[in-house]
Amino acid sequence: MSSERKGPKHDRILEAAVKVFARKGFHNSRIAEIAVEAGVASGTIYLYFRNKDDILISVFEESLDQIIGEVERDLLGIPDPRDRLRRFIWRHLRMLREHRELAEVLQVELRQSNKFMKEYEPGRWIQYLDIIARILKDGQKKGIFRRDLSLGIYKRAVFGALDEISLHWITTRKDESFLELAAVQLSRVLLEGAEVKPGPPAAARKR
Amino acid sequence: MSSERKGPKHDRILEAAVKVFARKGFHNSRIAEIAVEAGVASGTIYLYFRNKDDILISVFEESLDQIIGEVERDLLGIPDPRDRLRRFIWRHLRMLREHRELAEVLQVELRQSNKFMKEYEPGRWIQYLDIIARILKDGQKKGIFRRDLSLGIYKRAVFGALDEISLHWITTRKDESFLELAAVQLSRVLLEGAEVKPGPPAAARKR
Repeated sequence: MSSERKGPKHDRILEAAVKVFARKGFHNSRIAEIAVEAGVASGTIYLYFRNKDDILISVFEESLDQIIGEVERDLLGIPDPRDRLRRFIWRHLRMLREHRELAEVLQVELRQSNKFMKEYEPGRWIQYLDIIARILKDGQKKGIFRRDLSLGIYKRAVFGALDEISLHWITTRKDESFLELAAVQLSRVLLEGAEVKPGPPAAARKR
Repeated sequence: MSSERKGPKHDRILEAAVKVFARKGFHNSRIAEIAVEAGVASGTIYLYFRNKDDILISVFEESLDQIIGEVERDLLGIPDPRDRLRRFIWRHLRMLREHRELAEVLQVELRQSNKFMKEYEPGRWIQYLDIIARILKDGQKKGIFRRDLSLGIYKRAVFGALDEISLHWITTRKDESFLELAAVQLSRVLLEGAEVKPGPPAAARKR
């Protein structure tokens, strides 16, 4: 799914779609407006995409493809899984700021797509979550994180916390210092909450 | 907004709407179908609600009203804020199981309402989040939770983690043991992540 293979028009249409969706909302956007924004004929859009939902899902998939590649390369050079988790959290929140229109489309518009919520098989999204799972697993092997912690639950807890903070930032248009504080505080809660505690084993916690 | 004041037909319409929305999805549901399910004339629905979005938002508000009342009464008798947080998490996940259709409507359908995502002032939802904030604040006063932890960030992290786990459970139709495990593990991560650590003060963590 490299951009090279699909060509510059394909990419321009997706970039235009992000702008139009962010400005008018997914439901109110028309293919013709995306065409004008991209500087192509409306008919050209149908050479690449079946319909508006298809464009939205392509925005999601191709952005996520790129993000996953960048994050994975970035984490490669960081040996301590705690530092990798901090970096992952920081990067997720920094992306909101650097790609605000895209973030708005992915946080707010995408979830209004009935097709996305009902039919989409979230392969690439699971790949993104699995970056978190791999960090946890590596930390478990190294004796840093608790071995009884479920990868599936932890990765969703981390993503859910990030996602809620992101939605709050996008919808309330808070300033950037909120994202900085959130990165530091979320990292600490989610790391210390997963770490093996030093000293004598604590009594098993029960509800 | 007590049900008594609005009368039994009002409540029957909302209950019917939950069933219809859960079965057919919000976008595909028609007011006429809700009327049939409720055993009232279509015209009767318009005595109580302006349109389909209004019904959906009423389902959300009135359910949340009831949930907030129940949770607050339940937590009243629990003195330790750690136990209150465990109880809150456990109750949130248990509700999914006990009110599956409602959970489906609130988790999946509500977010597809453009009106809800764009215009809704989330007063009651903030009230629900603030139950978490008050637990944290009480624990901070008692020296159990770190004082530097932001109420706004922590309440959203807890809710976000719960919400992501809930969406996963609803959409993948996992069995109930998943919710039990998630309640125990989320409680532990989110509690230990917020607790003041015993022993000498740890060096300040930085990214």
